[in-house]
Amino acid sequence: MNILSIARRYLPILDWGAQYTSRTLTNDLIVAVIVTVMLIPQSLAYALLAGLPVQVGLFASMAPLLAYALFGTSRTLAVGPVAVASLMTAAAIAPLAAQGSPEYLGAAVALALVSGLMLVAMGLLRLGFLANFLSHPVVSGFITASGLQIAAGQLGPVLGIRAEGETFVEVVRSLVKEIGELNPWTTAIGLGSLAFLFWSRGSLKPLLLRAGLSERVAGTLAKVGPAVALVVTTLLVFGLGLAEQGVKIVGEVPKGLPRLTLPPFDVTLWTKLLVPALLISIIGYVESISVALTLAAKRRQRVDPDQELIALGASNVGAAVSGGFPVTGGLARSVVNFEAGAETPAAGAFTAVGIALVTMFLTPLLFYLPKATLAATIVVAVLSLVDIGAMKRTWDYSRADFAAMAATILVTLFEGVEAGLLVGVGLSIFLHLWATSRPHIAVVGQIPGTTSFRNVERHAVVTDSEILSLRVDESLYFPNARYIEDRINEAVAASPTIRHVILECPAVNAIDTSALESLEAINHRLKDGGITLHLSEVKGPVMDRLKRSHFLHELTGKVHLSQYEAVASINPELARKTRDAERAPATKGNA
Amino acid sequence: MNILSIARRYLPILDWGAQYTSRTLTNDLIVAVIVTVMLIPQSLAYALLAGLPVQVGLFASMAPLLAYALFGTSRTLAVGPVAVASLMTAAAIAPLAAQGSPEYLGAAVALALVSGLMLVAMGLLRLGFLANFLSHPVVSGFITASGLQIAAGQLGPVLGIRAEGETFVEVVRSLVKEIGELNPWTTAIGLGSLAFLFWSRGSLKPLLLRAGLSERVAGTLAKVGPAVALVVTTLLVFGLGLAEQGVKIVGEVPKGLPRLTLPPFDVTLWTKLLVPALLISIIGYVESISVALTLAAKRRQRVDPDQELIALGASNVGAAVSGGFPVTGGLARSVVNFEAGAETPAAGAFTAVGIALVTMFLTPLLFYLPKATLAATIVVAVLSLVDIGAMKRTWDYSRADFAAMAATILVTLFEGVEAGLLVGVGLSIFLHLWATSRPHIAVVGQIPGTTSFRNVERHAVVTDSEILSLRVDESLYFPNARYIEDRINEAVAASPTIRHVILECPAVNAIDTSALESLEAINHRLKDGGITLHLSEVKGPVMDRLKRSHFLHELTGKVHLSQYEAVASINPELARKTRDAERAPATKGNA
Repeated sequence: MNILSIARRYLPILDWGAQYTSRTLTNDLIVAVIVTVMLIPQSLAYALLAGLPVQVGLFASMAPLLAYALFGTSRTLAVGPVAVASLMTAAAIAPLAAQGSPEYLGAAVALALVSGLMLVAMGLLRLGFLANFLSHPVVSGFITASGLQIAAGQLGPVLGIRAEGETFVEVVRSLVKEIGELNPWTTAIGLGSLAFLFWSRGSLKPLLLRAGLSERVAGTLAKVGPAVALVVTTLLVFGLGLAEQGVKIVGEVPKGLPRLTLPPFDVTLWTKLLVPALLISIIGYVESISVALTLAAKRRQRVDPDQELIALGASNVGAAVSGGFPVTGGLARSVVNFEAGAETPAAGAFTAVGIALVTMFLTPLLFYLPKATLAATIVVAVLSLVDIGAMKRTWDYSRADFAAMAATILVTLFEGVEAGLLVGVGLSIFLHLWATSRPHIAVVGQIPGTTSFRNVERHAVVTDSEILSLRVDESLYFPNARYIEDRINEAVAASPTIRHVILECPAVNAIDTSALESLEAINHRLKDGGITLHLSEVKGPVMDRLKRSHFLHELTGKVHLSQYEAVASINPELARKTRDAERAPATKGNA
Repeated sequence: MNILSIARRYLPILDWGAQYTSRTLTNDLIVAVIVTVMLIPQSLAYALLAGLPVQVGLFASMAPLLAYALFGTSRTLAVGPVAVASLMTAAAIAPLAAQGSPEYLGAAVALALVSGLMLVAMGLLRLGFLANFLSHPVVSGFITASGLQIAAGQLGPVLGIRAEGETFVEVVRSLVKEIGELNPWTTAIGLGSLAFLFWSRGSLKPLLLRAGLSERVAGTLAKVGPAVALVVTTLLVFGLGLAEQGVKIVGEVPKGLPRLTLPPFDVTLWTKLLVPALLISIIGYVESISVALTLAAKRRQRVDPDQELIALGASNVGAAVSGGFPVTGGLARSVVNFEAGAETPAAGAFTAVGIALVTMFLTPLLFYLPKATLAATIVVAVLSLVDIGAMKRTWDYSRADFAAMAATILVTLFEGVEAGLLVGVGLSIFLHLWATSRPHIAVVGQIPGTTSFRNVERHAVVTDSEILSLRVDESLYFPNARYIEDRINEAVAASPTIRHVILECPAVNAIDTSALESLEAINHRLKDGGITLHLSEVKGPVMDRLKRSHFLHELTGKVHLSQYEAVASINPELARKTRDAERAPATKGNA
């Protein structure tokens, strides 16, 4: 591969940049203005959620957008601080340093760097598949629980009381204890903002549509509700002098762009951050790639999952060197970006410029911004993450998946985000292994009028008293090797007339060394009892492998291309008579 | 279930005891004498291997045999101290107490108790399947590495030098350092015993056969070689006064039966023993049940895997309350028991009586027994555990299984038994998940002259340019859900003429919630592109579950009983023409 094709592979900007026109430019600039307005309250609020000064949120909304514009393959993904990653950041660094200290900020920056480097490494090594080990129910349960914990924690600032704790349970306990201390002015602003934001989410768009605005304009305007709440409550606090009444305000925000920094190079610190950084990386990537794939599918664009790891990693490294904290692709802002008509990642780069202008010139306007309003924007944003419908659907479809989901939710609520995620992944893997360790094994017979064989319990089929045909509905591998051995022994012991056992293997996708030894043991034992063992419908890759062992030489019977041929080789008369019979009209179900 | 049937279920002795005759009694008594003679050197040697006084080995060979006679379902399994469990005992308790101290002995006894209680609990909860998560290659690799480590460690006593260390590597390093200090008399006895034992293993039986003895008698006599070595070297040390020349001897062994004791009830100690006890329990159970199943199969007897957990647990509790250490069913002694003709577990009970008589009256005879001889019996016994052939076979058959085996061996040799076992289990599970996360997906077509569909790359088949038939050779579940989504997207993007996609599902044994969401996404995207999605050959249990979701309502195509019916519903003419064509003579392989 020459240098140019390497550059093209890792820098998608070379592709879309070459086709950039002045029409695309105008379009992307308009989008950038809309997204900037939406991003300001989010950036400030998520910085507070992570326990950091508000300007860190703005810093984390510039360099990452530029880095993503260079490396990203999605045309519309918008990266920056998001709720769940901010909560995970707080959970990871709270045990390491006191909130507000330079060490706390340093740890947040280091976390972004470690996470960014991990993501880049995973991208270069094409390890994107690791994210697949987070099953949908575990991710959904984790996001639901995180949403609940964030919402509970933000009720504190909304009411003007303290809500502290590292888990949902601790936060709720702290809320209950402090509820008597609420500040009435703060509560009025906080609950007022909450009510307005909930209303603007549900009813503003229909209202604007009725006022004659187009679908797209109405939808986009409805998304800037948080910015409106910010402006109104800031004016209220300033006009009525509410800061003196105990309403907490943002206060002075240092003006100016972030300086290029490097996080403290502290091996002990970095080592402690490894596990949280891995979890934030994977959760962030899963969130980001899902959004990117969904939006790309709507416009038939392509997203490259491995390159996305590199782009997300570069965004986090960008956040780290500009004094920010961990970022990822956010659903809400990407949807706004998409719906406002973003055509290239340049829209993101222009948004970064917009945020930079705010950081340079408008931070004094944030002085009287009440923290209660920021907390209210978070509460509204995260409650949409709580997905009760998914819990119901998962319960209906699979109790095992529901168990993994429920465990993730409960452990996250009671023990915190890291424990919840690890238990969820561990349990979903264990439940899968457990299910495959006791596979479905069907006795099959021939359907009259066909050469097909189906489960005797579900279909009217013909069997031969000397032939036991078993279909094992699972790959044969170590967790089920002995189980299958036991079931075959039992089935043979239960039918003394049997002279032949045929294992029908259309569902056997692999046979590992443990299962091979079990098959050898089965063959050996059946042989001692004067019974021959046959296989049928062995898949190509499985057969290739069996040929490398001694099993096929020792096998007392043969390997047949189809189950029909296997039965016909033993009792040709019955097999043919059944095939040529009239097909039974009623079947009891499928397969 | 009434009390009698509960008793019958948990006390197999009620079954075989009812049919006990005087002929069986005579037979079992003869067997007990042979096994007792064989068991004495083993019991003494494995106690030393575990770092315990020799009489502890004798104690661990009485109560466990009695307990197993009550609860065990195998007619011929002999429980007691074995090499690997003794090594694991030493590894578990060496960090907790100084060898030779009462705390060290107390910890060994506590380990037997914790392990015994765990096994009983696993048996009552029917958790025997947990042992299946140890794949054959991992067990084989672990036993090989343990055998190497034990052999290296015993070379110390054989040569009369110190060989200390917790891993194979440390032991070898210690041997190399001390090799100059060897005691010539000890070396003479040790290497002499080694040579005799190796010879008696390989050549004694043929010699006895040539001398006119029957196969059975010759085989049994050949197994008492270690006892002969013990007697001869003890007489040599006594006669030549070698103890004064620096040859280490067993010395005074307290006479008398063990007293009923309880291990120290120390929660901190027990907690530290949980993981090692679990590993010893599972490895011990795997070893024991394999031996029991193999021997039972030879005589068509039944062994109940869950009851065996209870029996092995009771044996360990028995060991603990009589001052012994962890025990399990041993291969060598069980084979001797079997070949000598043991008919019931009563033979084991009589062996316990034999050991008790030795403990009460014959311990003074052990005074001059050289430790070098005991070490030599261990070296010979464990080297048969090193299975190079299994490594070769595993390499030929499956590189993934070989990787798990090699990792188990290397980590055990370099980091010790617990790390080796945990890494082996973790790696074999990960490699399985990894393999299933990138399943084999075949494009299939119809074999002329049949209604069968096979891989286009392996068979001469007929396809339709508007129909893409894909067979996914794996259950659809979270680790591969997105991979399959990507592959289908790619396949469709590569063939613009496609109007129908059919997923042939004979190998799909389950569809979990994550995969269901992927299928919904695939269906949705194909629909947007004007392509219908069909399924065929969906298994009964999978179909039952799909019916509980909304997927079947949203599916743009249909679910067909067979792949032929699916294709025939779209292009009946081509399907029938192909079916009625002459069958192609040459195929490129299987399935």
